[in-house]
Parts: sequence; structure tokens; C-alpha cells
Amino acid sequence: MQKQVAYGEAIVRKYPEQVVIGIAKEASGKCNPIALGWTMITSGLPPMMAVSIGLPRHSLGVFREADGFVVAMPSEHQEAETLFYGTKSGREMDKFAEFGAKLERACEIDCVLMADAVANFECRKVGEMLTGDHVLFVGEVVCSHVNEAELDRLYTVGSGYKMGGLRRG
Amino acid sequence: MQKQVAYGEAIVRKYPEQVVIGIAKEASGKCNPIALGWTMITSGLPPMMAVSIGLPRHSLGVFREADGFVVAMPSEHQEAETLFYGTKSGREMDKFAEFGAKLERACEIDCVLMADAVANFECRKVGEMLTGDHVLFVGEVVCSHVNEAELDRLYTVGSGYKMGGLRRG
Repeated sequence: MQKQVAYGEAIVRKYPEQVVIGIAKEASGKCNPIALGWTMITSGLPPMMAVSIGLPRHSLGVFREADGFVVAMPSEHQEAETLFYGTKSGREMDKFAEFGAKLERACEIDCVLMADAVANFECRKVGEMLTGDHVLFVGEVVCSHVNEAELDRLYTVGSGYKMGGLRRG
Repeated sequence: MQKQVAYGEAIVRKYPEQVVIGIAKEASGKCNPIALGWTMITSGLPPMMAVSIGLPRHSLGVFREADGFVVAMPSEHQEAETLFYGTKSGREMDKFAEFGAKLERACEIDCVLMADAVANFECRKVGEMLTGDHVLFVGEVVCSHVNEAELDRLYTVGSGYKMGGLRRG
């Protein structure tokens, strides 16, 4: 039995929600990461992924200017790092340098991978669409990487950036 | 440490993945549900959601013709129902009638809600975009509903439509 409620009351039922790190390179040469909960796969063949970035975010311009981006799936051990990339702005700092991130070079696009992530997907940008207060970017996956260890993904498990790994049901 | 692998080998690290039921009404008057793993929120104000539907799917035409759609988040008790809507085609049957679904009427759009879902979001269609072998539909949430009971969402926890509820980490 359903009851009608305000959107804000309903949407908190969404948890747990996946989280990824979207990475794109600025013209200055700095690679900028942002934690994003709003992401999905959007094609199987060729594989494509979508991410949504808020209009006021520094990353919006970075993603607009770049030819491609990386989608990294952080592991359950990367909660502090993910929170850092989600709450600090690259406008004032080099977030990767500031956090002391472990990075590797991407293969097909001019960007970096997160060495300790569960997986990294290099995407060539193929489109964007304004959706309300966010821009949805779509990229074709041109190279894929996994961690040599089998790690669990990190999820947002509740409001207020509450994060954790998940045991499968 | 990352190793480069084929996309198919990398993407299985994504699990657990959320699943929703996308519902739209056909011109014939039949409401057609489809299970979708590829979905996300894509705006906060106004709230918007996106879903991706494969080009060969019967639902593609239904979503194209309809003015709106419902995004229902099935509960962990709706595994069989979700699998049914994800593996049967509405081309040959009325999936809701065939399964014996418990439905309620939507308020703002001409569609139905799933009575036993965790939550239902009525969306007015605002855009679509071809992305590879899927079409990404974006809708503005115009009415929201939650289950009177506090239920856990259903997730796909592994390849081959393996589903289950999740205990929060």
C-alpha cells in the first residue's frame, strides 16, 4: 500500500546507492576527481556509461572541455578518499595531490586511473544533455581495468554521505 | 594495482546493482512494466530520473509514445515479479495481468503504481537521447509515493539475474 509523500521523503528509500569517481583532465594538466552517485550504464554494444554533474560544480567545466573521462568504482576501503573527492572542490586544489591518491596512467584517453579502485573504465565522450540542475554526460567505454584483488564496491548506505561496503544478500 | 581486461570481464565487478520497474501506458490502455538496471537520478531541483531501454525491447515504443512513466523500486520480496517483468515481453501479453500484480492508480500521470514496491515515482517525460543500443529517457518527478511499511530494495547481486535484498554494510 502506497502513500503519497514529498519527493524528499520518498527518495531516501533509494539507499544503498552506488558511488563512482568521475575523473577528467583540465587544460592545465591537472586530473580532477569527483564522487558521483548519479551514474549508470546506458549501452551494451558499444558499452557506454553516463554520469550527471551538478551545474555549480567545478567538474562540470572540466568534463565539458575534456574529450573523455574515467569512471572508477571505489572499493569499500576508499570511504575517506571518496568523501574527500565528493566534498572538496578542485577549483581551489589538486584533490588527488592533496589526498595523496595512488594513480596509474590510462591507456586510451589522456587521464588517470585509481590504482586501488575495484575497476576503472576509460570513456570517450559521445554526448551530453542538460537535465534540470545537472548535465548528463555519456561516454563510450574504450578501455577497462580491474583490481588484481577481488574487492567489494563502496556504496552510499544512507543520507548524509553515510558509506560502507555491502554484504551480498 | 589495475590490470587491463575486456569490458565484459570488468563490468561484472559492478554488482550489486539497483533494479527498478519502469512502467508506461500503451495507446491500447495496457500498462506495461519492464525491469531495468540502468537507471539513475539526474537532477535535484526539479527532481528528474533517467532510464535506459534497449532498442529491440517492446517497452521502447511504449516509452516513446507515452507522455510519462513510473519508476517503481521493487522490494526484496519482489524478486520473482521483477524477474518476470525483465524476461517476458509485453508484445505478447499483459505482464501485470499475467503475474497478478497488485497495482494502484497514479495521481499525476496516466499510469499505475506497484502497491508493494518500496517507492514509486511518477515522471513526466522531458527528453530522450540515443546512446548506442539503448535510448535514455529522462523524466521529471511530479509525484512520489512510498510503501507504508519500511522495506528493503531489491538488487541484482550477480550475473545471470541473481537477485536479493542487501544488508547495509
